[in-house]
Amino acid sequence: MISFENDYLEGAHEKVLKRLIDTNMVQAAGYGFDDFSAQAADKIRETIKCPEATVRFLVGGTQTNQVVINSMLKSYEGVISADTGHVAVHEGGAIEFSGHKVLAIPSEEGKISAKGVEAYLETFYSDFKKEHMVFPGMVYISHPTEYGTLYTKEELDSLAKVCRQHEIPLFMDGARLGYGLMSENTDVTIEDVAKYCDIFYIGGTKIGALCGEAIVFTKNNEPKNFTTIIKHHGALLAKGRLTGIQFLELFTDDLYFKISKHAIDMAKKVKNGFLEKGYQVYFDSPTNQLFFVLSNDKIKELEKKVKFAVWEKYDDNHRVVRFATSWATTEENVEQLLKLI
Amino acid sequence: MISFENDYLEGAHEKVLKRLIDTNMVQAAGYGFDDFSAQAADKIRETIKCPEATVRFLVGGTQTNQVVINSMLKSYEGVISADTGHVAVHEGGAIEFSGHKVLAIPSEEGKISAKGVEAYLETFYSDFKKEHMVFPGMVYISHPTEYGTLYTKEELDSLAKVCRQHEIPLFMDGARLGYGLMSENTDVTIEDVAKYCDIFYIGGTKIGALCGEAIVFTKNNEPKNFTTIIKHHGALLAKGRLTGIQFLELFTDDLYFKISKHAIDMAKKVKNGFLEKGYQVYFDSPTNQLFFVLSNDKIKELEKKVKFAVWEKYDDNHRVVRFATSWATTEENVEQLLKLI
Amino acid sequence: MISFENDYLEGAHEKVLKRLIDTNMVQAAGYGFDDFSAQAADKIRETIKCPEATVRFLVGGTQTNQVVINSMLKSYEGVISADTGHVAVHEGGAIEFSGHKVLAIPSEEGKISAKGVEAYLETFYSDFKKEHMVFPGMVYISHPTEYGTLYTKEELDSLAKVCRQHEIPLFMDGARLGYGLMSENTDVTIEDVAKYCDIFYIGGTKIGALCGEAIVFTKNNEPKNFTTIIKHHGALLAKGRLTGIQFLELFTDDLYFKISKHAIDMAKKVKNGFLEKGYQVYFDSPTNQLFFVLSNDKIKELEKKVKFAVWEKYDDNHRVVRFATSWATTEENVEQLLKLI
Amino acid sequence: MISFENDYLEGAHEKVLKRLIDTNMVQAAGYGFDDFSAQAADKIRETIKCPEATVRFLVGGTQTNQVVINSMLKSYEGVISADTGHVAVHEGGAIEFSGHKVLAIPSEEGKISAKGVEAYLETFYSDFKKEHMVFPGMVYISHPTEYGTLYTKEELDSLAKVCRQHEIPLFMDGARLGYGLMSENTDVTIEDVAKYCDIFYIGGTKIGALCGEAIVFTKNNEPKNFTTIIKHHGALLAKGRLTGIQFLELFTDDLYFKISKHAIDMAKKVKNGFLEKGYQVYFDSPTNQLFFVLSNDKIKELEKKVKFAVWEKYDDNHRVVRFATSWATTEENVEQLLKLI
Repeated sequence: MISFENDYLEGAHEKVLKRLIDTNMVQAAGYGFDDFSAQAADKIRETIKCPEATVRFLVGGTQTNQVVINSMLKSYEGVISADTGHVAVHEGGAIEFSGHKVLAIPSEEGKISAKGVEAYLETFYSDFKKEHMVFPGMVYISHPTEYGTLYTKEELDSLAKVCRQHEIPLFMDGARLGYGLMSENTDVTIEDVAKYCDIFYIGGTKIGALCGEAIVFTKNNEPKNFTTIIKHHGALLAKGRLTGIQFLELFTDDLYFKISKHAIDMAKKVKNGFLEKGYQVYFDSPTNQLFFVLSNDKIKELEKKVKFAVWEKYDDNHRVVRFATSWATTEENVEQLLKLI
Repeated sequence: MISFENDYLEGAHEKVLKRLIDTNMVQAAGYGFDDFSAQAADKIRETIKCPEATVRFLVGGTQTNQVVINSMLKSYEGVISADTGHVAVHEGGAIEFSGHKVLAIPSEEGKISAKGVEAYLETFYSDFKKEHMVFPGMVYISHPTEYGTLYTKEELDSLAKVCRQHEIPLFMDGARLGYGLMSENTDVTIEDVAKYCDIFYIGGTKIGALCGEAIVFTKNNEPKNFTTIIKHHGALLAKGRLTGIQFLELFTDDLYFKISKHAIDMAKKVKNGFLEKGYQVYFDSPTNQLFFVLSNDKIKELEKKVKFAVWEKYDDNHRVVRFATSWATTEENVEQLLKLI
Repeated sequence: MISFENDYLEGAHEKVLKRLIDTNMVQAAGYGFDDFSAQAADKIRETIKCPEATVRFLVGGTQTNQVVINSMLKSYEGVISADTGHVAVHEGGAIEFSGHKVLAIPSEEGKISAKGVEAYLETFYSDFKKEHMVFPGMVYISHPTEYGTLYTKEELDSLAKVCRQHEIPLFMDGARLGYGLMSENTDVTIEDVAKYCDIFYIGGTKIGALCGEAIVFTKNNEPKNFTTIIKHHGALLAKGRLTGIQFLELFTDDLYFKISKHAIDMAKKVKNGFLEKGYQVYFDSPTNQLFFVLSNDKIKELEKKVKFAVWEKYDDNHRVVRFATSWATTEENVEQLLKLI
Repeated sequence: MISFENDYLEGAHEKVLKRLIDTNMVQAAGYGFDDFSAQAADKIRETIKCPEATVRFLVGGTQTNQVVINSMLKSYEGVISADTGHVAVHEGGAIEFSGHKVLAIPSEEGKISAKGVEAYLETFYSDFKKEHMVFPGMVYISHPTEYGTLYTKEELDSLAKVCRQHEIPLFMDGARLGYGLMSENTDVTIEDVAKYCDIFYIGGTKIGALCGEAIVFTKNNEPKNFTTIIKHHGALLAKGRLTGIQFLELFTDDLYFKISKHAIDMAKKVKNGFLEKGYQVYFDSPTNQLFFVLSNDKIKELEKKVKFAVWEKYDDNHRVVRFATSWATTEENVEQLLKLI
């Protein structure tokens, strides 16, 4: 049975796999101090045009959010996030495990606004019980968001301005960053991301790698003794080469962007196919996650032949479902899907 | 200048103080194993008509919430609370410090409903990403709430039923319990509290004591090695006598209830005084915290002569303010206040 | 039955109690922002001759150690302590609860040395796996130690030098500080303590107060937002006046030192009594805790008439026992004890 | 330059890599719910002859220790470990990060004994301050140990007996388990490990995999909601297939044991070569880590041509060094090494 359930269904892109094979017996230093990781960091610095950036590789997204947030916040601070944000809802309390409150603020289509952040900060600073509250110490956004939506350059600029004004860093969760950057409906480049965000990560797990996320500190702001900090969280990979080699390949000849583009192309086909057949779009996502409103009967029927995610209730007879494409989605599967619906 | 800023402005009730003086040179065992604490526990068990209850004394409210919640939850569980709940907003992240997420749900006048809890639990259990979310492991309520409001017996019964059905304990924060029980507008007795709640605490700090809260486990459910658990949190008082003696006095001859009643009487006078002069009530609290809507000008004027808490913005020209009475409020001060407004 | 079991058997010194009574109905601000606390801080600053010091009051010793250590260390750092130190052995893991490792190093009669600290730091810095280890971020000592022993001025000076050289703070747990300062066998004054230590606390619970410890930051080094940090730990007292008033009295007319001296005088009598009767001293403690070697038979006999602490096994037929005097020990009880042995 | 610095220098065994390639485009469920992981678990259950075992795959060793220990202990409990144990010394405080104290007890050549554990437990239970101490809630051993040494079957049996008597689980860190089982000097089989230990993990990172450790719960004792627990720690791999596929291959046709055997054969050659040339063995390790005493001059000379780990100081002129072989060590490199020394 074909699946559009998520964007981490397959292994790694064949070029990434090939680079792992080619380098397999090269002896390399452990814990991220290998040459592959160093070269991958160089490639990323070049790509984002930020020579002062430092780059670190971790294994997964929740782990990355936990390590970054816990290492940037003071013990008594919390992180502002959309109420629908990944750190707020779907990380099993990994942020709280490290002692921090997620300060959830209202969001629209997965996004928060500079205005919303400012309103929250204002309430905080004007509350006479401020000293009894959790200090906001960071703003977390994801791009694309949980709903596949994207910030505009202007929105990022505004968020960055609020953050700088209040001296708190802006952190972007880029688990699906490539899919965001390759969308046809975006004016945001990876250079913009590096410019506006104090920290962001480039997702590999969902875009061509077996595993791996690249944390980028853009403002000479990597916490001191960061290797120990990673270890302290149980997140230090002995064979750091594993993530280093994969990102080295992903950032060679723009592979990361090319395969992201493929997912967008496939998503477009899927979306057009659904629209042509009269299905209702729920969120009009410009990236690789597509949200439709299907009747419960239709869902039951489709589930026999294709896998997809049932997202939430729409009304008594309908649900919101998600179809995700990825770097690995084949034209064949897309065509098969469109025949099924 | 007189103050109605909060209900912990003075020291202790004179009888409590007298008992401290009378017992001062008696040599007593440390860490809560003294006879005074044992006798106080007996008195509380009698009062609440729950012979199987175990009673422990801690120093303050946030500490009590942290210790109770962390000792009852599994590491990956969270606690359901009103979005306006003390643990959700005004404890500086003390719950998160112990690793747990506060699962804030919508509230009305400080209260949550059985229906609201059930709706939350339903969403949780039906979410296909449930395993990635924080499991709800307890329901936290405060009575009176942050806004001085009270649950009815029926509401408590319903909450208890939902909790039992889902096998999660119901915990009542009773920082101001006495003021709730002595309200004229309540059908809830302390026996009801013991019946419906799996754990609750009886607040002393705000009702006649220098410090101290009495945790009551009502269902043979005190966690094993609880003394060590308290120590582990840094919350074990060497001179456990301090809280034991005070609660012994507070639960002798119904002192706790008599002095709570006094605060309610004083609150009534204050409220009537404000109403007579045409002030607008914000929340019509039946307990010792009174919320009024005052113009900014009036606030400025009054602040010169009396202390009170400016709670939140009402509109551009008005704010919500809180006047609190307590066991220590004098008729004299109330009269002076009513003259000032 | 009389008791020498520990130094927190009674309530508070009568003058402390009197001050609580005299100020009882004064309305005061909460959370340590009351005038009494401010005045107590002034008195302490004067006494220690350190005008730049900031002073904060907490309720108990373990709580104080947890809050101080967690607020001064980075998340991945640990605290160096004697292997017999209170934080290492008898705080129920309260330091680990806050995420930090206690780095236990060898001690002699409860004390660590500058040499010992340096040896540990050297090992740490030369270990090629340093990045995988817990960074030493603070040195913790207690004075008097768990065994009633005292550091000399020279020893403190040396410890302070090692700490400054390695840029890590020196923290003194002064739960029994008064008893140390009033010993006849010490050249250390409280001004020395303020000079050599970056942080220390003055114990009240064991010296005249119902509860309370005064944290002193001596080098303009109080962590930012410390009130929130205290709250975050669940350690903020609503009625901060309780500790403020007690310390105000303790530091008026040298009460703290006078009552500490009394304990030392009583200890001397007890010690001489035991020595005269031929008992063996275990540690020759110069403070209020006295350690003797008693036969198991003698212990059984004595336990019927007087309470004391059986500390540890000495040999198959003997144990080490501890008799503690305090500010509250009466001449009468001492005489009775000496008759019993 | 050739390297014997550690046993995680290369990528993965070619068969493991081939299986990753062969399965690369198969669509699989996320988070460990894929068929590969299920099959790998079956293979492991068969191999250890423990049909009731449950098996979970994590990415790395420190992560595994943190998740297992934190999920098995109550919040106030600690884990007993050799003072030289990995969790005690080289995990950057990852156990303390999760709130638990490592209770370090004396060890010999990296091993602890049933007698040592019992002595510790006795002290704990007889200490009158027991309630103020960290309760021992688990025994952690590594096999092979940090020094490459091995427990005998009898020693494991004794440790298991002490643990069962005191109702605390025995946990074996098997980061190098294969190298221990394939040693010529052991009477311990993997079935014995499953029999004596309540939990153990089979190390993949150091034996043929790119990354991955297989946790085995042998006594129907997997904690409830373990997937969420893993997520809570930030340790849940989206593409669980990555570890599942690798362990599936490692436990097909005894690959794990065959490649472990190779490392032992290579270690034997290295050891004999050193002994023939008159070098002094430090610990006579029966596994893949070899410890020799070399003069500082010799070290300097050798370091130009071969990489190895300088372990610790032996005397002013000598140091202990470690040479490690692995599944990937070539005969060629061994010969080259022996020529160099």
